[in-house]
Order: sequence, then structure tokens, then C-alpha cells
Amino acid sequence: MMLHKTLSVDLSHEAYPLYIGDHLLESSALFAGHIGARQVMVVTNETVAKLYLAPLQEALADYQQDCVILPDGEQYKTAAQWLQILDVLVAKKHHRDTTLITLGGGVVGDMGGFAAATYQRGIPFIQIPTTLLAQVDASVGGKTAVNHPAGKNFIGAFHQPKAVIMDINLLKTLPKREFSAGLAEVIKHAMIADESFFIWLEENMEALMCREKSALLHAITQACKIKCDIVVQDEKEQGNRALLNLGHTFAHAIEHVLHYGTWLHGEAVAVGLLLACQLSETSCQFSVKSTARVRALLERAKLPTALPVEVNTQELIDAIRMDKKVLNSTLRFILIRSIGQTFIDGTVSEKMLSELFC
Amino acid sequence: MMLHKTLSVDLSHEAYPLYIGDHLLESSALFAGHIGARQVMVVTNETVAKLYLAPLQEALADYQQDCVILPDGEQYKTAAQWLQILDVLVAKKHHRDTTLITLGGGVVGDMGGFAAATYQRGIPFIQIPTTLLAQVDASVGGKTAVNHPAGKNFIGAFHQPKAVIMDINLLKTLPKREFSAGLAEVIKHAMIADESFFIWLEENMEALMCREKSALLHAITQACKIKCDIVVQDEKEQGNRALLNLGHTFAHAIEHVLHYGTWLHGEAVAVGLLLACQLSETSCQFSVKSTARVRALLERAKLPTALPVEVNTQELIDAIRMDKKVLNSTLRFILIRSIGQTFIDGTVSEKMLSELFC
Repeated sequence: MMLHKTLSVDLSHEAYPLYIGDHLLESSALFAGHIGARQVMVVTNETVAKLYLAPLQEALADYQQDCVILPDGEQYKTAAQWLQILDVLVAKKHHRDTTLITLGGGVVGDMGGFAAATYQRGIPFIQIPTTLLAQVDASVGGKTAVNHPAGKNFIGAFHQPKAVIMDINLLKTLPKREFSAGLAEVIKHAMIADESFFIWLEENMEALMCREKSALLHAITQACKIKCDIVVQDEKEQGNRALLNLGHTFAHAIEHVLHYGTWLHGEAVAVGLLLACQLSETSCQFSVKSTARVRALLERAKLPTALPVEVNTQELIDAIRMDKKVLNSTLRFILIRSIGQTFIDGTVSEKMLSELFC
Repeated sequence: MMLHKTLSVDLSHEAYPLYIGDHLLESSALFAGHIGARQVMVVTNETVAKLYLAPLQEALADYQQDCVILPDGEQYKTAAQWLQILDVLVAKKHHRDTTLITLGGGVVGDMGGFAAATYQRGIPFIQIPTTLLAQVDASVGGKTAVNHPAGKNFIGAFHQPKAVIMDINLLKTLPKREFSAGLAEVIKHAMIADESFFIWLEENMEALMCREKSALLHAITQACKIKCDIVVQDEKEQGNRALLNLGHTFAHAIEHVLHYGTWLHGEAVAVGLLLACQLSETSCQFSVKSTARVRALLERAKLPTALPVEVNTQELIDAIRMDKKVLNSTLRFILIRSIGQTFIDGTVSEKMLSELFC
């Protein structure tokens, strides 16, 4: 195996590895090390199943295998679909020591993870994120969820996987727009905590856009490292883990107002990051020059840098207010002091927020 | 306050108190110590609401209060009802720092607890168990769940409360049959780990049946202590916590075959305890005399000691096989060596099981 890195997520009461490498999906040995019994339940979606279900099933040939193939799309990240996964687990008589394996992007990982969190009060699971976004973001941290009509991820739980397997070979089939959306989270991670990684991204964006494997391996590993460091310090999002939400209060509100589906999550995050930069210019002297650097990098990653024209800003502000990061009636925002330095702020007023959208 | 005891459940990464006493429901100060923000959501059922919702609301007068009143009964312990609780939390704009308070028996506690476990990936909750069964059993250990058509508690999570408030004054309105059902779990706890408590029960069953407050306080405290000791050592049911399931593989199967609703859970447990004794006679030399003592105590508590006539034993054996304690295709049973000494056994064969029902 030419390319292969392992990170460890060391939480207070459990630890699990993240494997990042090329052609990991075919590695039976890798799976064997993390499956405790004889049953496995693969949860995937229609799009991914066509491309990668067969090689995974081959790698899992030694186990009693069952499979749930969900429709593809954020609009299916619902309690109804989650119940369907549970129904199949019951129907196929899966025991408490079965291993659930999610093969897909953030939706599959979150929803399959929530099924693993709640079937028989929690069963082991392994995540195989198949999108760049899911690899650098959704698959680290143990957050599982489905959406509620009133808000994204309103129903969910914390449930840590036994292992996360990130196969960069799977990214070769990822549509361009989705690849770019993943880069938004990579850029976000650099902005949060690592200026030198941000500079590396500025120097290597072309290689990344060409999906050069060594560049991909470095970018994914660095992004995951930043996320791991923060998650390990704050597993249940009581404090600094909120930093990972840089740009996300805006992004969730944009997605909510667009009724999820028009924009990809990463695209909303790109605009959210810029809005966070602009809010930070007035709130904490983030430099106009740094905002320009962020904008330039997002543009090179082929990401949007302005709100969609159809968005009503008052509706957006209302959505921000109900966002789950709004704790106890105080508006909390993640602000950025300089690239690589972020903090949680409770001083942003409704007025400052309105002015941002003038 | 004449009668009042406090136990502490000290888990590895969190600890919470169990308050056991008289007229605790009216104690605003007790709640204030465990509510972190300004919102509270009370989850209860129609029967309990009529009796105890008003005094609770008075004790919580300082908070923004909302309330979900569920229909009463195990048949309503469903994913649909759980979703309804989440809908009310969303509709009333409850934030992540709201406190959910369950006021009711095991169904309300389990289902409200599961809503607390999954709303916004987990919010704080306080349990006020109003039945003897819920006080001595369901309220200690952080198990939350709803039923799936295929099995009891198939959908759930572990989520520890901030505090459990057990008001023995609430037991005065408990129907006789439900009170007896609670005693089944008290007797079970004594059988698992404390022979001297079993002897105390033999000596004080009349006082308990008359609901004398000092006897109730002692019995509830002792039962909770036994459960706490076991839960603290094994929070996620990987090992010895299974001891608490003494008689429960049988009980769940009986309830399943009777489609939940004919017998109370505690009544099924009573018969399950006797079946565990009889299985232990052949498997590990549990004495016939001890089985007779258990039977006598159950009878004095006005509990059933034989299978309902309408039960088909083959159906029962099938239900046992699918029970969630059946790990990795091995039948695991909790057996009893002598009163106060129990262990997990994996050697019971299908044949031994069939003979038990001959």
C-alpha cells in the first residue's frame, strides 16, 4: 500500500482509529480488526451502491451480510428513513453485537450512525465516508442525526464509531461540485486552527483540484488532525468544539431558507465562512486583507462566495435565531481574529447581524 | 422533612443523585439545584397529570414551562409518541440547555428519557418516577427506549439524568396491582446480590404491603443501592449489569407472547424469577427450598407465580431466542446459585429450556 496514514481519536472513555489511504475498501484485514461478531449490516445509498457496494461485500465475504440501500439526498435524512434501517435490523434478526457499516456521504453516515446509536441502545459501527466532505468533517466526532422539518440534525445522538475508513480512491468518482463542497470544510479547518495549513492550501489548490493522491492524503490528514484535536478536548460540545461551527450558523440558516436541496452543505459553508470573516472585521478587527485571501481560496476551489439572490435576509436572520447554537437566548457566534485563530463570542447583537446583510 | 435519603450514582464520566423521600415533589429548591437554564418541558401521562402535574408546576413556577401529556399505557411506548415529544420541543422553541422532566412510570421515563437523549443530540433531564417499579428499577441506570413492533426497548439509547427524585408520597395513589408489580423488582434486587435484604423483606412484607413510609423508604433505598452498585461497575451493559436481568429473559418473552398489556411487567418478572430459580435448580444446584422461599415471598406480595394458561410454550421459546440478551447466537441466562448470588451463564441448551416448560 503506497499511501496510508492512521490517526487516533483518543476520547476519555474510548478510542478509535481513522485510516486514511488508497484502496482501503478492498482490505478485508482492516475490517476484520474492527468487527467483533459474525453479522454486518451495510447502510448505503443508491448512487454509492452502484459504484462501491460490490467490492465492499467482497471484502466482507466472511460475515453474514445484510444491506439497506437508501434513496440518495439530504431530503431523505428523516426519522422515517432511520426507522426503516431499524426495521431491517429487526427483520434480519441482528443481535446487539452486529456491526453496522455506513458506506456513503454525510447523510448516510449521520443516519446510519443514528441507527447504530439507537438500535438495542447502541451497536458497534464502522464509517466509510465516500465524499471529501464526509471524510474531513462528518466522520470525525461521533455526531449522528436525522433532520426534523423545523431544523437540520434536530434529532440525533453522540455515538462513536469503532473505526473510520477513508479511501481516497473513492474520491475519483465524486462529482466536481461535491468535491468543491468538501474543500470548503478543509479550508474551514485551516482557518480555525492552522495558518500554515492554510498557506499549504494556497500553494497546493491546483494539485488538490486535480485530485492528486499525495495532495489529497495530506489535506485530508491535516483537516482530520485539526478536527480530532478539538473533538478530543470537548466530546459533547460543551465548549471549544463549537469552533468547528465557524461559518455554520450562517450555512445552516442558508440551507434552511433554501429548504435544503438547492445548495450543497459545503457551498453554504463557503458563503458562511465569508460572512463570519465579514462579521469578524467589525467585531474583532479581522483584516480586510485576510477576508480577501479566504475569498480567493474559495474561488479557486470553485465555491460560491455570495448569498443566493433569492434569499430573504429577514428569513435568514430568523433561521439563525432558532439555530441550535443559540444557547439560552444569547446569540453565540464563532469569530476569527486572524487566519488560524478563532473564538466563541457572545457579544454579537441583532443590529450587527442586520447590518451584515445590508 | 421527616424521611429523606440521598444516593449518588458515580459513573466514570458523570455523577448524579437519587433523592428518596417524602413530599419531594413540592420542593422547588431541589429542582433549582439541577435545572441549568430557564426552560423546562414536563413529559407525563393523562393519569399522572390529573394527580400530580399541578403541584409539580407550582414547584417549577420560576421557569418557562411547557408540557406533553401522553396517553397512558405500554402500547403507547412507540417511536410515533416519541416523535411527538420532539415536535413539541421544536414547536415551543426549546434550546439545547432546556431541562426535560419526566413525571410518570417506566413508560413515561423511558420515552421521555429517549426524547431527552435525542433532541439536539441530548439535553439535560430529571426523572420523577411515580410508580414503585420505576423508582426501584427504570429510573436508575440511564436506559431510555421505546418499543418496536418486534420487541420491547429495541429502539433506545443510554442517557443519564441530572437527578432522580423519588417521592414516596406519590405511591399512596398507586393501584394495588401496580404496587405489587414494583415489589417484584425489589425482590429481584435482593435475590441478585443481598441475602440479608431478602430476609428483611420476608420479615417486613406486611408493612410494605400497607405502604408504611419507613418500610418503603428502606426497601426503595436498598433496592436502588444494589442497582447503583452494579450499574456503576458496568454502565453500558458489557458485563455484570446483565445480572439485573435475572428473570427478565423469561419476562420479556411472556410479555411479547401476551402482546404487552394483559400482564404488568412486574407480574411477568415474578414468574420469570421463579423460572430462573427452576432453571438454576437443574443447572447450578439452586436449592428447592430456596425456590419455595422465593415463591412464598412473591405470593405474599400478591404476585403471580405460574405462566398464564394461554401461553404457547413454543412461541415463548422463540421469543426468548430473539430476546436482546441473546448475544451472538449463544443463549445467555442469569442463573442463581443461592439467594444473593447470581451469575451469567452461557451453557443453557435449547433442550434444557424446553424441559423447563414440560
